[in-house]
Amino acid sequence: MTVEFDETNLLSGMTGEEHGIRPGEIDAHRERALAALSGFRGISERGEVGFPHLPVQQDAIDAIRQYAAGQAGSYDTVCLVGIGGSALGAWALDCAMRGPHPVQGAFSASHPRLVILDNVDPDFISAALASMNPKTTLVLAIAKSGGTPETVATLLVVLDWLERAVGAESKKRAAVVTSAGRGDLSALAERREYATFDLPANVGGRFSVLSPVGLLPAALIGIDIVRLTAGAAAMTHDCWLPDLDRNVALRSALCHYLVWTGRKKSIQVAFPYSNRLWGTAFWFRQLWAESLGKARSRENRLVHVGQTPVAALGATDQHSQVQLYIEGPNDKVFSFWVVNERPDPVVIPRRSLGLEAFDYLGGQSLESLIDVEQRSTAAALAEAGRPNCVYRLGRLDEEHLGAFLQMLEFQTAFMGELLNINAFDQEGVELGKRFTSGLMGRPGFDRFRNEFEKYEKKRQSAAGS
Amino acid sequence: MTVEFDETNLLSGMTGEEHGIRPGEIDAHRERALAALSGFRGISERGEVGFPHLPVQQDAIDAIRQYAAGQAGSYDTVCLVGIGGSALGAWALDCAMRGPHPVQGAFSASHPRLVILDNVDPDFISAALASMNPKTTLVLAIAKSGGTPETVATLLVVLDWLERAVGAESKKRAAVVTSAGRGDLSALAERREYATFDLPANVGGRFSVLSPVGLLPAALIGIDIVRLTAGAAAMTHDCWLPDLDRNVALRSALCHYLVWTGRKKSIQVAFPYSNRLWGTAFWFRQLWAESLGKARSRENRLVHVGQTPVAALGATDQHSQVQLYIEGPNDKVFSFWVVNERPDPVVIPRRSLGLEAFDYLGGQSLESLIDVEQRSTAAALAEAGRPNCVYRLGRLDEEHLGAFLQMLEFQTAFMGELLNINAFDQEGVELGKRFTSGLMGRPGFDRFRNEFEKYEKKRQSAAGS
Repeated sequence: MTVEFDETNLLSGMTGEEHGIRPGEIDAHRERALAALSGFRGISERGEVGFPHLPVQQDAIDAIRQYAAGQAGSYDTVCLVGIGGSALGAWALDCAMRGPHPVQGAFSASHPRLVILDNVDPDFISAALASMNPKTTLVLAIAKSGGTPETVATLLVVLDWLERAVGAESKKRAAVVTSAGRGDLSALAERREYATFDLPANVGGRFSVLSPVGLLPAALIGIDIVRLTAGAAAMTHDCWLPDLDRNVALRSALCHYLVWTGRKKSIQVAFPYSNRLWGTAFWFRQLWAESLGKARSRENRLVHVGQTPVAALGATDQHSQVQLYIEGPNDKVFSFWVVNERPDPVVIPRRSLGLEAFDYLGGQSLESLIDVEQRSTAAALAEAGRPNCVYRLGRLDEEHLGAFLQMLEFQTAFMGELLNINAFDQEGVELGKRFTSGLMGRPGFDRFRNEFEKYEKKRQSAAGS
Repeated sequence: MTVEFDETNLLSGMTGEEHGIRPGEIDAHRERALAALSGFRGISERGEVGFPHLPVQQDAIDAIRQYAAGQAGSYDTVCLVGIGGSALGAWALDCAMRGPHPVQGAFSASHPRLVILDNVDPDFISAALASMNPKTTLVLAIAKSGGTPETVATLLVVLDWLERAVGAESKKRAAVVTSAGRGDLSALAERREYATFDLPANVGGRFSVLSPVGLLPAALIGIDIVRLTAGAAAMTHDCWLPDLDRNVALRSALCHYLVWTGRKKSIQVAFPYSNRLWGTAFWFRQLWAESLGKARSRENRLVHVGQTPVAALGATDQHSQVQLYIEGPNDKVFSFWVVNERPDPVVIPRRSLGLEAFDYLGGQSLESLIDVEQRSTAAALAEAGRPNCVYRLGRLDEEHLGAFLQMLEFQTAFMGELLNINAFDQEGVELGKRFTSGLMGRPGFDRFRNEFEKYEKKRQSAAGS
């Protein structure tokens, strides 16, 4: 199996057994898990949610490979304009396969560079533009609807920068990923003859990493998208198995459900012991938060559910967050992400440098040290009654990464079923978006500017009283 | 004032007033706040905690400037070997003053580059070494005690790499920051004639950014440490004022105390609307978590306190986390970090590109857009009954950054007083450290290897039953 799940430290060692899962409890909830599986299978078969099918959409994969082959040698930088689900998948793939390196939106050192413009911070955008040569840059505009003001504003700046440098050539230097025939980005692409790739209508941004949203930038920076999708396809097969022993996504979803509901673990710490998985942790943060943070159940009952995902990096954050994790409120569950084999273990030299007290490290490897750090931290957490579990990848290559991402998407979908919420919408962000459109003077949004100002006045007067 | 604090959205607009602070409540707790101030003043005057004095330690600042001047022109890369409090301050300074750029430990694009080796991930270390030229690299080893296995292991690898390239020259190419005359790193530096800078014994890692731990790397990459410490010194003056209107750190600490204790906001989201403050958010994450995540009160009563800090980036994370923040459990308080003026606002071009629906954006700036995004998000959160507040910096230059960092340290110290805990230790990480030492075969730690194995067996058998 490409991804293993070890729940030993959820099942035992918890003080008074009140913080972890009781032995036998997983079995006792088998029927509930199987109902979640068949519930989501129905959604998928009715075509309402499309991510399970992405790994086998051969035509889309072929079109991307062909486009990438045609562009080969014509660029040294891929500039992705997109935000949220349009950016995080590409960052996760870049960081894992060509990293370890930068934070989302920062400037990669690998070539061709991937520069992700996922914020409207002017300091950030001007530094990014200054770091790129428009004559050797491919611009990718990625948005599901094309109506995101942040993406459009950035795109207006970037396309202007591109056209000033290359003129009419620009139509060969830009491509668009968006919902077919829908929204302004689609119209822009048609009018300006940009290459266009479709995001299927039933695939939301946070589930789109294996659609052109993630695969197009991945192919352009040299990631093997055939192996990536093959790994995901194999995992998809396992994710439909009605068998808690072989279906990792279903078993892990059930465990997280039991810990969230029964033990009130309101925070999940995604804790990769690998810098290369740091981008994936941020991608997961969106997947888990937006899918499961919901005010209402499917029956429209107020529930206010949603575990808060936190990204922590091992071993680094042992020296920053673990004090709180061990001694603070027992309100967290820890998900370690571990990679078994690394290409180079990095042996610590035997030469003593006058640090006799540390001569014992000589001849051992950093690979074994980081492994020991993870096991020590897991054991210390368990001994303090803090439930934790491990996701284990054999290696960190395209197959394993594709499988891991797909497994986490299925786990999220199953968790939505277990919680009886719609994991595939995001109504909660609408009010803020309307305020922004109103305040920026978008036609038709005047009343939201007025509403914003009324609310502001009300709060200021309440605070002053 | 260099840093302003706006608590309007903590004070009002909260559903049923149960989630925010009641009008008048701050005044009602004035005495409690002043007691916290005088409690911490006592600690500081007795010399138990040294960070308030760092900005005026002129000798240390001069010694660093002199060393940096002497090295000028001899390097293009500064390689910092350290973890936790030995790394995060330098990353915060680099990101804010030369960024926006990389995540902690990634590879900066500015020159001289700062490469921070703060993990023992072999993939990360080998990629970092491959990216540097040992003949033009200065190595800084930073550790309070010098006994951290992660730092020592990495240092053994890095010094070997350096010595193979430059031989005896290496003694001029490495410097050490550690507690004077204490620990192995100090002995190593003496034996090998490395330049040495002292970390005062009463300054913990997470409060050390304005000691040589942060100032030495900062000076070497061209940050003006005189202006940085001047800003912090001015803020220090304000932080001792017994006046809630002028003492930002004391007022914000009281607000966070009231929200944490009375309203059970177990999570604080540090939400900078600035890529350049992203490093500072990670530095704050350690400061808040390690200082305030405590099992016991000063009277040794079990309390398990500690707000979990979460870093979110505006506007980017509006498209990743805000759905959860608005609709999920009402268990968070939001601290926006805002910068008023930017060097270049980046005007959105008026040229229409066929996106008529977005022509209204033309002529406006990204600076005004990101400001509107923040205000819209704050208002939407408030309307959903989610308490939030704003820290506002006039500009992002050395003075303002120094003031902001020092303010956050004082706020943390005051919060420790309000919670009646010791904010300056970190006992909770000891068991994990002992397990690591035992498993790696460190002399004298055998019994912890045995203990680890006993615990492992116990948990595995409990899980299997």
